[in-house]
Amino acid sequence: MELIEKHRSHQGHQETYKHFSETTICPMNFSVYSPDNSKDCPLLYFLSGITCTEQNFIQKSGFQKFASEHQVAVVIPDTSPRGENIPDDISYKLGFGAGFYLNATQEPWSKNYKMYDYITKDLPNLISNNFQFSKSKIGIFGHSMGGGGAIQCALKNDLYKTVSAFSPICSLHKTQFAKEMFKNYLGNNSDELSLYDPITLIAQSSKKFKNIKIDVGLNDEFLKDLYIDDFVKTCNSSGQNLITNKHEGYDHGYFFINSFIKDHIDYHASILKN
Amino acid sequence: MELIEKHRSHQGHQETYKHFSETTICPMNFSVYSPDNSKDCPLLYFLSGITCTEQNFIQKSGFQKFASEHQVAVVIPDTSPRGENIPDDISYKLGFGAGFYLNATQEPWSKNYKMYDYITKDLPNLISNNFQFSKSKIGIFGHSMGGGGAIQCALKNDLYKTVSAFSPICSLHKTQFAKEMFKNYLGNNSDELSLYDPITLIAQSSKKFKNIKIDVGLNDEFLKDLYIDDFVKTCNSSGQNLITNKHEGYDHGYFFINSFIKDHIDYHASILKN
Repeated sequence: MELIEKHRSHQGHQETYKHFSETTICPMNFSVYSPDNSKDCPLLYFLSGITCTEQNFIQKSGFQKFASEHQVAVVIPDTSPRGENIPDDISYKLGFGAGFYLNATQEPWSKNYKMYDYITKDLPNLISNNFQFSKSKIGIFGHSMGGGGAIQCALKNDLYKTVSAFSPICSLHKTQFAKEMFKNYLGNNSDELSLYDPITLIAQSSKKFKNIKIDVGLNDEFLKDLYIDDFVKTCNSSGQNLITNKHEGYDHGYFFINSFIKDHIDYHASILKN
Repeated sequence: MELIEKHRSHQGHQETYKHFSETTICPMNFSVYSPDNSKDCPLLYFLSGITCTEQNFIQKSGFQKFASEHQVAVVIPDTSPRGENIPDDISYKLGFGAGFYLNATQEPWSKNYKMYDYITKDLPNLISNNFQFSKSKIGIFGHSMGGGGAIQCALKNDLYKTVSAFSPICSLHKTQFAKEMFKNYLGNNSDELSLYDPITLIAQSSKKFKNIKIDVGLNDEFLKDLYIDDFVKTCNSSGQNLITNKHEGYDHGYFFINSFIKDHIDYHASILKN
């Protein structure tokens, strides 16, 4: 694990590391924000959207102020494997920046595109072995592709005690965003896709959270492709409590995330610290 | 004036416009944050550092939350003229992104590089004619090249009632940052340089501010080249009150600005709103 960037930020440190992942079989970057005195502090994972690296959230969301105030650490992984020898595609919805937090089954993607295992096993092990954050007070959240990713990871892994999302892609079966990924990564195998589909999983899962918090802008240019109302319906019928806030005028980007990031950090901290 | 970008942000709007400037004789971008109900609200100008456009501050500083809470508008200009027919240089300290908020006197720069007139006359006129912000409650602040720029503009123009800076370049005569600009823009004319030099101006100026607020990181990689202690001495000897905060561990970049942006918006609002 190699430190490649470190900045003092809001009475803590914003760091970026590079490490070789045996899961994606390539070097991976991740960022971590550690408030001062971070021993045993709650830990959040933030999963970013398509095209992002680990840098977008740490530079644009402004989360550090609130993580510092609550004394919460935040880890931000990259969104895919990357590198000269890693398969990529000209579409921004496939390859670099679009790992979709799943394990690809099809050539040439299946060798490296194991982001589900990376996020839920490899990275948590690395963090646990190298930082002194709490090993039990752990939450996960994300944006767009990463919002859906946070929900599907949370539903299937006891590691995560809290989950929230900005503008999540709730239906991989229906959204246009997932069509190329579905064909290329999973060979159009519908059962495989369901393993990562928030709506399918919420209908099936016996794991229940106190709440799932979702924020979305009503001026979101991709709103119809997120299927948030379908997710709400499925939560209601399956007994999963949900806090959904729809915000007039806000769009899909980081100005929206920055406007409501405080609420998400407050939300996770209020549950994880009790 | 053409709107090229608009995002809802913290109960206000973050917009970017393009307009043709008769001063720099080219299209210029600027951003403006308007809180809801911005009629007659205080207005701040933020001058960015070398290499920046109008985008860096609006994406990375997180100022919108605090501008919204105080109901303060903020205008963020670009740092130089730009375009195919505009002179540039391979050095990042000269040409695009490095206008230094002065009026160049030397060919080929003198035709377009009139950033002092653009910032203090052209842009304020445009804002005054197109927005309903207060025409008297106006402050200016900036970072690095723009921190020094804010101070020199403030000292020479009654328009600005408050001034503050992050990590300002206080001595254009001494700093390595200004050497190429000095030769190219001003033909090494020392009297011309003094017109824009914060330390020279603070020693000469009869205009006094209630305070000038300066924040700087003690891990700033350019600290020795800012000449902040020289500026402090000159303020003390010339009777200009100064609030200087030196922050252990913080560097020169936007993680530092983001950490202390609230204090600067608080500072300007507390004076301009009284």
